[in-house]
Amino acid sequence: MTTLIKNGTIITAADTYRADILVKNGRVFEIGREISKIANEIIDATGKWVLPGAVDAHTHLGALCDGMAPADDFASATAAAAVGGTTTVIDYAEQAPGGTLAAALEEWKGKGAGSSVVDYAFHLAICEVNPGVLGEIPAMVDAGVTSFHVRLDGCGERYINDGDLLEFFECVRGAGAIACLHAENGEIVRSCLRRLRAEGKTAVRYLPLARPPEVEAQATARAISIAEMARAPIYLSGVSCAHAIERVKAARDRGQAVYAETSPHFLLLASDRYEDPDGEKYICIPPLRPSWHADVLWKAIASGDVHAVASNHRAFDHAGQKELGRDDFTRAPHGFAGIQERVSLMHSAGVGAGKISPNRLVELVSAFPARIFGLFPRKGTLSVGSDADMILFDPEAEVTLTQAKSVSRSDYTPYEGMSVRGAPWMVLQRGKVIARKHKIMTGAGAGEFLPSVRSSLP
Amino acid sequence: MTTLIKNGTIITAADTYRADILVKNGRVFEIGREISKIANEIIDATGKWVLPGAVDAHTHLGALCDGMAPADDFASATAAAAVGGTTTVIDYAEQAPGGTLAAALEEWKGKGAGSSVVDYAFHLAICEVNPGVLGEIPAMVDAGVTSFHVRLDGCGERYINDGDLLEFFECVRGAGAIACLHAENGEIVRSCLRRLRAEGKTAVRYLPLARPPEVEAQATARAISIAEMARAPIYLSGVSCAHAIERVKAARDRGQAVYAETSPHFLLLASDRYEDPDGEKYICIPPLRPSWHADVLWKAIASGDVHAVASNHRAFDHAGQKELGRDDFTRAPHGFAGIQERVSLMHSAGVGAGKISPNRLVELVSAFPARIFGLFPRKGTLSVGSDADMILFDPEAEVTLTQAKSVSRSDYTPYEGMSVRGAPWMVLQRGKVIARKHKIMTGAGAGEFLPSVRSSLP
Amino acid sequence: MTTLIKNGTIITAADTYRADILVKNGRVFEIGREISKIANEIIDATGKWVLPGAVDAHTHLGALCDGMAPADDFASATAAAAVGGTTTVIDYAEQAPGGTLAAALEEWKGKGAGSSVVDYAFHLAICEVNPGVLGEIPAMVDAGVTSFHVRLDGCGERYINDGDLLEFFECVRGAGAIACLHAENGEIVRSCLRRLRAEGKTAVRYLPLARPPEVEAQATARAISIAEMARAPIYLSGVSCAHAIERVKAARDRGQAVYAETSPHFLLLASDRYEDPDGEKYICIPPLRPSWHADVLWKAIASGDVHAVASNHRAFDHAGQKELGRDDFTRAPHGFAGIQERVSLMHSAGVGAGKISPNRLVELVSAFPARIFGLFPRKGTLSVGSDADMILFDPEAEVTLTQAKSVSRSDYTPYEGMSVRGAPWMVLQRGKVIARKHKIMTGAGAGEFLPSVRSSLP
Amino acid sequence: MTTLIKNGTIITAADTYRADILVKNGRVFEIGREISKIANEIIDATGKWVLPGAVDAHTHLGALCDGMAPADDFASATAAAAVGGTTTVIDYAEQAPGGTLAAALEEWKGKGAGSSVVDYAFHLAICEVNPGVLGEIPAMVDAGVTSFHVRLDGCGERYINDGDLLEFFECVRGAGAIACLHAENGEIVRSCLRRLRAEGKTAVRYLPLARPPEVEAQATARAISIAEMARAPIYLSGVSCAHAIERVKAARDRGQAVYAETSPHFLLLASDRYEDPDGEKYICIPPLRPSWHADVLWKAIASGDVHAVASNHRAFDHAGQKELGRDDFTRAPHGFAGIQERVSLMHSAGVGAGKISPNRLVELVSAFPARIFGLFPRKGTLSVGSDADMILFDPEAEVTLTQAKSVSRSDYTPYEGMSVRGAPWMVLQRGKVIARKHKIMTGAGAGEFLPSVRSSLP
Repeated sequence: MTTLIKNGTIITAADTYRADILVKNGRVFEIGREISKIANEIIDATGKWVLPGAVDAHTHLGALCDGMAPADDFASATAAAAVGGTTTVIDYAEQAPGGTLAAALEEWKGKGAGSSVVDYAFHLAICEVNPGVLGEIPAMVDAGVTSFHVRLDGCGERYINDGDLLEFFECVRGAGAIACLHAENGEIVRSCLRRLRAEGKTAVRYLPLARPPEVEAQATARAISIAEMARAPIYLSGVSCAHAIERVKAARDRGQAVYAETSPHFLLLASDRYEDPDGEKYICIPPLRPSWHADVLWKAIASGDVHAVASNHRAFDHAGQKELGRDDFTRAPHGFAGIQERVSLMHSAGVGAGKISPNRLVELVSAFPARIFGLFPRKGTLSVGSDADMILFDPEAEVTLTQAKSVSRSDYTPYEGMSVRGAPWMVLQRGKVIARKHKIMTGAGAGEFLPSVRSSLP
Repeated sequence: MTTLIKNGTIITAADTYRADILVKNGRVFEIGREISKIANEIIDATGKWVLPGAVDAHTHLGALCDGMAPADDFASATAAAAVGGTTTVIDYAEQAPGGTLAAALEEWKGKGAGSSVVDYAFHLAICEVNPGVLGEIPAMVDAGVTSFHVRLDGCGERYINDGDLLEFFECVRGAGAIACLHAENGEIVRSCLRRLRAEGKTAVRYLPLARPPEVEAQATARAISIAEMARAPIYLSGVSCAHAIERVKAARDRGQAVYAETSPHFLLLASDRYEDPDGEKYICIPPLRPSWHADVLWKAIASGDVHAVASNHRAFDHAGQKELGRDDFTRAPHGFAGIQERVSLMHSAGVGAGKISPNRLVELVSAFPARIFGLFPRKGTLSVGSDADMILFDPEAEVTLTQAKSVSRSDYTPYEGMSVRGAPWMVLQRGKVIARKHKIMTGAGAGEFLPSVRSSLP
Repeated sequence: MTTLIKNGTIITAADTYRADILVKNGRVFEIGREISKIANEIIDATGKWVLPGAVDAHTHLGALCDGMAPADDFASATAAAAVGGTTTVIDYAEQAPGGTLAAALEEWKGKGAGSSVVDYAFHLAICEVNPGVLGEIPAMVDAGVTSFHVRLDGCGERYINDGDLLEFFECVRGAGAIACLHAENGEIVRSCLRRLRAEGKTAVRYLPLARPPEVEAQATARAISIAEMARAPIYLSGVSCAHAIERVKAARDRGQAVYAETSPHFLLLASDRYEDPDGEKYICIPPLRPSWHADVLWKAIASGDVHAVASNHRAFDHAGQKELGRDDFTRAPHGFAGIQERVSLMHSAGVGAGKISPNRLVELVSAFPARIFGLFPRKGTLSVGSDADMILFDPEAEVTLTQAKSVSRSDYTPYEGMSVRGAPWMVLQRGKVIARKHKIMTGAGAGEFLPSVRSSLP
Repeated sequence: MTTLIKNGTIITAADTYRADILVKNGRVFEIGREISKIANEIIDATGKWVLPGAVDAHTHLGALCDGMAPADDFASATAAAAVGGTTTVIDYAEQAPGGTLAAALEEWKGKGAGSSVVDYAFHLAICEVNPGVLGEIPAMVDAGVTSFHVRLDGCGERYINDGDLLEFFECVRGAGAIACLHAENGEIVRSCLRRLRAEGKTAVRYLPLARPPEVEAQATARAISIAEMARAPIYLSGVSCAHAIERVKAARDRGQAVYAETSPHFLLLASDRYEDPDGEKYICIPPLRPSWHADVLWKAIASGDVHAVASNHRAFDHAGQKELGRDDFTRAPHGFAGIQERVSLMHSAGVGAGKISPNRLVELVSAFPARIFGLFPRKGTLSVGSDADMILFDPEAEVTLTQAKSVSRSDYTPYEGMSVRGAPWMVLQRGKVIARKHKIMTGAGAGEFLPSVRSSLP
C-alpha cells in the first residue's frame, strides 16, 4: 500500500521545503523532488503545508471528573482530534485509589482499544505515592509508559509531602522516565474555598479567587525546588499564569531541566468570561486568568520557556453538567472540549499573528510532545521512517468555530463564534486519510497503542 | 539614683557624636555637652564608644535539646551575655506537645525570674499548629509576646502542611505580631538521613550532606511564598547560606516584608571544621557551610538584606554531650555557646574589616532586633527615655577568645584561639554596671521580664 | 544665647521619643526629660514633631537655564525653603565653558553670601571633563565641595565618552568624594528630537517621546557599569522611572555602591499633565512619567533602593517663560518650583498614606542627603552637637497648596490645589526661628556656607 | 550527475534517522529507505552520521590585522575548512576608511572568486557609520549581504556614539538585515592599556587586564539597550564571558531578539595559557578567560542563550608574528587558526561529554548560522532541495590535534596535542567529495559566492 503526496510544502520543527512524500506501509518511505513512482493513491497538496500529525499530550478521554461522565468517550473525542489534525493523543491513565499502576494501564488500554480513532499513548496519573507504587514504575516503563503524573493540589490525606515528592522524582528519574505535575497548592486552595464559602462567594465569578496565580506559583516553585534536589527533569502540565512562568524561567536560567505546557484556552480566553451569564461553561483548573497573563505566556513561547501546547480536553455538556456550577462553581466538573480546535487556534493566533514561525508551531503541537514523551521520531516529525501521520494544512482557510462544527459530543464549545485562519484540509494517519475538510473518514478503533520509549530530552 | 557617663562617643543606628549621658532611675534622662550635674556615680568614658546594650534575639537558654540539658542555665548564660555586652535576650519559650502557649510562657517566665542576669523577652515556639493554639495568639500578644515561631524541618506528624502555615501566618499578622521560622525542609532532611544511614555515612564529616543548602533554600522559598499569600511579614531565623539569601533578595525586590537573621558562626566558621578531629564540637542546625557562603552573607549584610545577627546560643559540653556525635552526628545535641562573643566578633570581623560602619553594627546587634520584636525604643537605642543599657566599648582592645575567658559553663568555645579587636570595657543595665573588663558585677535575678509590644516594622 | 524646645516628640532617622532640647549658641546642647534650665527663649512644642531641618540636595538657585533667568534668586528660593522646613540647600555650582572649578565655586559662594536665607553647600557641575578639571578636584575637596556632577545627556561636543567617564569616576573616588549624574542618553534624545521635529511633533504633549524611560535606563546602566569598573560610588540625581530603578536594584544586588534620588513631582504628578491645556507648566527633565512608574518608585523607597528625595527646584514663570513651550517644548526652560512643598508632600503622600515611617521620612529628606554629601551630623539629625536646625512639624495640619501661599516668585505652582496633611509649624536654624506658620521670620543673608567634608557613605 | 549516500544516519537540527540520500545536480533530490536508483557515485555511509555541511559564520580570511598579513589566504583557510567539515564560510568584508560598502563587497568577492575551496558569503564590517554608508545598506541587501557589523571597541575618532549606533540599528532593521557587534568598550580598553603601559605591564600575561570581562559586559549592555530602543535584532559575535551572558539572558527574558555567538577557544582554552612560555600564541580579542567562564558558556549553550559557535579564524605564524607580542602584547596580531578543528572540537567536548545532543551540535555549527544569515535552507540542513553539502562524520574516530595535521599555513595550532573523539570522514560540497580522511580532494576556486537573503530569524 503506497500513497504519494505531491507538491506540498513540508514543514517540520526545523525545515521548510517543497517536496513530494512517498508513503509505504504507513511510513514515510521517500521524500524527494518530483517523485514519479506509481502509488496506490496520489494526493495533490499544491498550495498546502504538509505538517507532521499533531500530538496532544494532555487529554482526559477515559476519566470521570468528580464522578461525572464526560460528554465524550475515546471514540468521539479522537474523532474530533482527527478532524483537527491530531493523530496522536497521550491520555492520562488514572490509578484507582488502592489500585496498581498496572491495573490502570490495562484499564486504559482497554478504553482505547477498538475505540480510539487516532494512535494513543498514556501518562500514568498516580493518586497515591507509596513504596508499592514507586516500585511499579520500572515495569511500567518496560510496558511503554514513560511519564508519571502527580497532582500537587491534593489536600488532607491526598497531600503529597515533600519527602514523598523527592522519592517520586528520584524513582522516575532512575527509571529514565519523566515526572509530570499539576502544580497548584491544594492546601491553600482548600483555605481559599473555606473562606469563600463562609462569605457566600460560590458563584462562578468567584472561581478565580479560589485558585489565584499565587497557588500555582507556589506549587510550581515547590516542584522545581525538589526536582532540583532530585536532579530530575520535570514537565509542568497546565501552566496558566505569569507567576508560574517567572519560576520556570529562573529554574531554566540555573540550568535545570524544567518543561512547561500550556493550553490554547490560557492563550485565548480570559477570566472575564466568568462574569458572563454562561460563565460556568469556562470552569477549568487552573482557572482562566486576566488577559495580561496570556501576553506573558506568548512571550515565553517565543523565548522557548514554554515548550508544548496541549488541549487538556475534558468535554462536558453545559446542560446538566456545567450549569451545576452557576451558583456554586465547585459543583460543576472542570474542563471543556478543545482537542479539535488546538492546531487551528495555535496557527491562527500564533503564526497568523506573527508571534511564532510555522516551524515553531510544529515544535509546540507535535515535535516537542513526541520527543519528551518518547514517541519521536515515529511521531512528531516527517523524516524517512516516521509514521506517515500528516496534516495537509490550508493556511489560508477561514473558519468560524461553532458547536455545530464540533465533532465532540459536548453541547457547546468555549470558542463559539471565534474566527480562525488556517485549518486542516486533509489528515492522514499512517498513510491513510482519516479526515477531509472537517469530516471524519475512518471509524472507531483505527488507532493503535503506542508504547513510549525512554524520554529523549531536548 | 543617678549615673553620669562622661566624654564618650555615643553611637546609635543613626548617629555618632560626643556627649555626656545622665541616667536617672535606670533611664536615659539627659544627653548633653558638659553635663555638670551631681550624680551618684560618674564614669569617665573618654576614648570609649557608648553603644546601646545589645539585644540577642535568638537564644535557647531554657530548653532541652533532644532531652539533653544544656551546659548553661538562664543564670550562667545571661552572665555570659552581660560580660559580652548583651543586656537583653529574647529566648524561645517552647510549647510542650499538647500544651498551651500560656503554659509555655508561664514556664519560661519562671525560668527567667530570679535567675536571669539581663532583661529578657520571649518568642513562642509553637510545636503544633491547630485552632486552639492559633486561638491563643491574641492573648499572648496581650501578655507581652509578639513573635511566634514554627520550624519547617519537622517531618511525619510534626510536618506543618501549607494550609496550616497559611492560617498561622494570617493569624499572626491579624494579631499585629510577627512570624519567625526555622527554614529547612524536614522531609527532605529525613530522606537524606535515611540514605546516609544506609550508606554508613553518619560520621560528623557527613553532617553537611544531611542538611545541604538546598533544603534551606526550599523551605525559605516555601515560607516566603505562603507569607506572600497571607500578606504577613516574616523573620527567618538562622539563615546560613547563599541559596537562602537569593530567595530573600527576590522576595524583597518584589516588595515583600521578609527579614533575615544570621549568626556569627555562619560568618566566621566554615564546614571544613567538620573534618577536624574534634569536628563534632561544631554540630549545629543548619550546619556550617563552605566559606564562600559567608562572603554572600556579608554582602547581604552590607546591602540590607540580612537584618539581624543573633547568637543562637545553645551551650553543651564536649565531654559527654557533643562527643556523642563523633561517629553519628545525629546523637549529639546541636548548637554551642556564642552569646558572650557575638558583639566583639561582629565588631572585629565587621567594623574592623571595613565591611560595616559602627552604626550598622548597632543596627544589627541592637536596634533592629529591638524594633522588630517590639522592645524599641526602650531597648536598642540611646535616646532620652530609653533604658540606660549601655556598652562602654573599647574599639582598640585586643582579645584572644578562649574557653578560660568564657563565662558559659560549656567546656569549650567554638572560637577558641581566635583574636578579636574591640571588646566591652564596661556594661550597664538600667544604669547599673553589670560587667567590667570581662567580669560579671551583678548577680542572678537582676534581669526583668520585658513585655514586647506590637511589632513596629522598619 | 539659649533656646529651649519643650515637650515635643523628637524624630530622627532612627529614633522617636519625647524630650526637651536645649540649644546653646546655635547647637543642640542638651536633650532631656524635663529640662528646667533658664533659657532666653522657650518654645512649647507640645503635640508637635521635632524633626531635623531638612536638607535639599538638588537645587538650581543660581543658574540660568538656556540663557533664561529663573523666577527666583537665592534669596527668594531659600525663603521658600525655610518656610517649607528646609534649612540647608546643596546647590549646583556650574563650571562655565572653559572656566575652572575654582571660579565656579567662587561665583556660587558669591551668589549665596549675603543672600541665602538658609545654610548652603555646593555640588560642582562639571561641563568639560579634561585633565585640568580633573586635576582641580582634590583642591575643591579641600575647599569644601565633595560631590561632582556630570550630565550624560550631552551630545556632539558635549558628549562625554566612556574613557573620560571612567577617569572622572576614578578621580572623584581618589579624592574621597562622590560622583553625581544626570542619567539620560543625550545622543538618543537628539535622535528622538530630530525625528519629532521632522514629524512636526513639538507640542508639549510630545515631550515624553523625546526622553522616553529607555534613554534614562540606558544612561543609568552606562553610569553603573563604568562606575563598577572604577569601584566608585555614584549618586543618581533625578531618577524618574521604573526602568532606571531596575538597573539600580541589579547593581545594588551585586554589592555596588549606587544611590538614587528622586523628586516629589515624579511621585505625585504624571505625564498626563502634558495633555492639559497648560501642560507646558510641567516641562522638566527627565519628564513626568505615566503614573505606574510612581508606584515602582514608592516601592523602591520602601525597600531602600531610593535613598533621597530632593526638589530639583528651578522656578520659572508661566507667563513669558514656560508658555514658550506650548507649541515647541524645546523652547521652554525646564523645571519648576518645589523647594517649599517637598517636606509636606513627602509627609502627606508617604507617612500619611502609610508608605513610610516618620523615621524614614527624615532619612529621605534630611539624614541621607546630609550623610552622603559630608554634612552629617552637623545637619541631618538632632544629636548633641548638631546644628539646632529643626522643624516643629504639625502632623495634623491640613493645607491646600496654592500659588498664593508660595514664597517662590514663580507665578504658578505645579501642585496648585493639592491638599496635604502635615506642615511645618515653626522652623529654626541654628536655634533661631526663621519661619512660623508659613511666614518667613528672617532676612536674606542669614544662611552660611557649609564646607562639606569627605563623604561618609552609609 | 548523481551521487547516492547509503545507509548513513542523517542528523539535522531536529531529526535523527536512517536513510539514503540521492543527490542530483548538487542538491538533495531524494531521501528514502533503500533508494536503489542508479547513481554516478555511490558512497556507503554505514556507521557514519550524515550532517549538513557546517557553516562558519565568523572568519577573517581576507583581512590584514594591524597591517600584518595572515598566514592563510582564502584558498588555504577554506581548504582547512573543508577538511574540518565546514562547507560554507561567512567572511567579514571590511569597509576601507573612506571607502564604500560596495567597494568592500567587490574587493572581497574578488578575494573569494577563483580562490575559495568552499562556498562563501559575507558580512559587511563597517568602519565608519555615516549617512552615506547607512544609505548604501539597502543596496547591499539587494546585492546579497544581509548582516552588517560594527565594532564597539573603537576609541577616539573611531568611537561610535550612541546616536550613530541607534541610527545604524534602525537602518539595518529597516533593510530587513541583522546587525552584528564586537562588544568591548574601546574607551575603557584604552584607559586600561594606558595604565598598564605606565606600569610597564605589557608582557602577554597582562593581556587579560587590558580587556577584562567588564569591558565586554559594558559594551554588551550598551548594544542591547540601544537595540531595544531601535527594536532591532542583534547578533553578538565573540561572546567570551559570564558577564556578557548575564546581560544576554536578561535581554532575552525581556523578549528582546538578541543572539550570541561564541568560539571553541572560549570553551576549551583558558587565560592561564597567557602564563605559558609561549603565551603569545593565544593572543586574541576578547582574550581567553579564567576557566569558570567556559562553564557558564556551556550552560548558556544548553539553555539556548548561546546560539552559534564560530571559529573566528585569523591564522598567524608564531615566528615573526605572534612572537612580537611576548613582551608587548599590543605588538602581536590577534587571533589564530581554528576553522578546521571547530566541528570536531564541538562534537568531542559537547556531544561526547554529554553536554549537547547531536541535533544541537548541528544547530550550533550549521543550522542557526545559516538561518540567521539568510542561507537557509540552502545551507544548514539536509532537506530535499538543499545544497548537498554533507559531513559523513565518524563519531568514534579518535584524533590528536597537531600542527602537522593542520591544513592552515600557520606554523602552530592553539589546540596542539588535544585529543578529540569524532571527526569528518568524508566531506561533500554540492554533492562532490571535497575532503576525505583529513585530505583535501578539490582545488582552490571550487567555492561559489552565496548571496544571503533577508534574515529569517528563528
